[in-house]
Amino acid sequence: MTPFQPGFSGSTFDRADHLRGDLAALATLLLHPQARLLQLQGFDPALTAEGALVWNSLLDQERSEDYAVSLILLGLLDGIPHFVGLQQHSAEAPLYRTPRTMEVLSLLGPQDMATYGTARSLIDWHGRHRFCGKCGGATVAHRAGWGRRCSVCESEHFPRVDPVVIMLAEHGNRVLLGRQASWPKGRYSALAGFLEPGETVEEAVARELFEEAGVRASKVRYVTSQAWPFPAQLMLACIAEVQDDTLHIATDELEDAVWFSRDEVRAALAGDPNTRFLLPPAYAVAHSLLQHWAWPDEAQ
Amino acid sequence: MTPFQPGFSGSTFDRADHLRGDLAALATLLLHPQARLLQLQGFDPALTAEGALVWNSLLDQERSEDYAVSLILLGLLDGIPHFVGLQQHSAEAPLYRTPRTMEVLSLLGPQDMATYGTARSLIDWHGRHRFCGKCGGATVAHRAGWGRRCSVCESEHFPRVDPVVIMLAEHGNRVLLGRQASWPKGRYSALAGFLEPGETVEEAVARELFEEAGVRASKVRYVTSQAWPFPAQLMLACIAEVQDDTLHIATDELEDAVWFSRDEVRAALAGDPNTRFLLPPAYAVAHSLLQHWAWPDEAQ
Repeated sequence: MTPFQPGFSGSTFDRADHLRGDLAALATLLLHPQARLLQLQGFDPALTAEGALVWNSLLDQERSEDYAVSLILLGLLDGIPHFVGLQQHSAEAPLYRTPRTMEVLSLLGPQDMATYGTARSLIDWHGRHRFCGKCGGATVAHRAGWGRRCSVCESEHFPRVDPVVIMLAEHGNRVLLGRQASWPKGRYSALAGFLEPGETVEEAVARELFEEAGVRASKVRYVTSQAWPFPAQLMLACIAEVQDDTLHIATDELEDAVWFSRDEVRAALAGDPNTRFLLPPAYAVAHSLLQHWAWPDEAQ
Repeated sequence: MTPFQPGFSGSTFDRADHLRGDLAALATLLLHPQARLLQLQGFDPALTAEGALVWNSLLDQERSEDYAVSLILLGLLDGIPHFVGLQQHSAEAPLYRTPRTMEVLSLLGPQDMATYGTARSLIDWHGRHRFCGKCGGATVAHRAGWGRRCSVCESEHFPRVDPVVIMLAEHGNRVLLGRQASWPKGRYSALAGFLEPGETVEEAVARELFEEAGVRASKVRYVTSQAWPFPAQLMLACIAEVQDDTLHIATDELEDAVWFSRDEVRAALAGDPNTRFLLPPAYAVAHSLLQHWAWPDEAQ
């Protein structure tokens, strides 16, 4: 566990990749007397009174005809298989988080948050990949929920993860944060954007900073990463040095962007009620990134 | 330009994201008197006698009915639009590099390699996403080749980039390299694997090292990244400290894995013919990663 560890990380599950394609091993796991099934409410997690994920006994569940292909093996914990069901998936279901999702998430511990995030990303991916991109044929889940195969052309499809760069521009002792018009009043966070084919992390950071704020990155350093399950981003968190602090804000993307001092950021992170901005939530990697920037000596 | 810069990076193209969805601006770019079209031979680049990419005049080309949607805007260079055509795409075309691809690549300069890599990843993506994953309907290219839209349910689809972790395990003054049975005799390189939904970069590095070599990473540091266009990976290159050097090699993935000393790696990078292993090619990020590890003081 590193200091300032981002949310949705730190799972101790053994993902057991070698068992996913082994039908005999899977059959044994499905009959494991302690096998567990994650309980969801739509796309949100059900919670115990203590704010933990709810796991039901897999053996207690009714078994439909497509039982074996309707479960995702999330992994093993102390040798006990943990599954989540695919039955909730639907192309019409909301892809993005709701206020209730965020409320529930703020109650979960790190391990549960990571487990739920993995489950949510996979369920969502299955729902959006029911047909083959190559031939249009229907696809069927396989490899214990870690792939789909086309029933017509037999192409294999694997879960998608979209790399996103998220970054602080740094000018001397100040850092650049922006806000979108749709965000809660007063909230500022790191700028971010999807990495495109043909780009390095460092190039995507420089492009996004220039596109959104008109600043030129002279040096980019990677800080940390996070899996963000809305629906399945890999957040690559960086700090970019900037020589010229003149801003040209792309108003179609950002409502505002402001340079904040290290003292201001530290005060906000410490919960000072008099700061002039609100931070991103603690489980967002932007929060961890600001912690790294605010107290660089403690981040090692 | 950083020292030990990976291949396929360093493009100076302006990707001009804001113009992709602007039909009036695109029409102007298509009629630009100096607009250029990349010449390909199948999936491989055509080359000038000097080993550069070949660009034809766009205005000289015959214009088919679906002309505008059959071009990808790669970007602007000195204000001149550069395109590549989609007409070569086909689900049956080979996705992976051939010996000829590799031969041609070794002749290209960094800028051309980056441009070709972006073009290739996008062409390949279009070929494999002709149908909508949600409803099976036919999709059509839009946003100047940077997206597809379903003609039935109107879902938007964006180019896919798959994050891959590639890493050196480090034990004292030695580094772990492995080889696959299909590689050229004597070649050793960094271990690698696809990052999965729900994982951080650091967690994926630790999982892959344990799965493939049985070593436990105690600390992971990010080094650099690369866009690898076969078909569209984001290579995230890391070094992982290891306390116990005992290997348990997964023989279904690796033929062999060996600890090499810093002197051996330096000799191989310097072209010493007496080293006991062959390096990955210079344009592979594993090569840059080994340079960073071999001469850490020069990498800043």
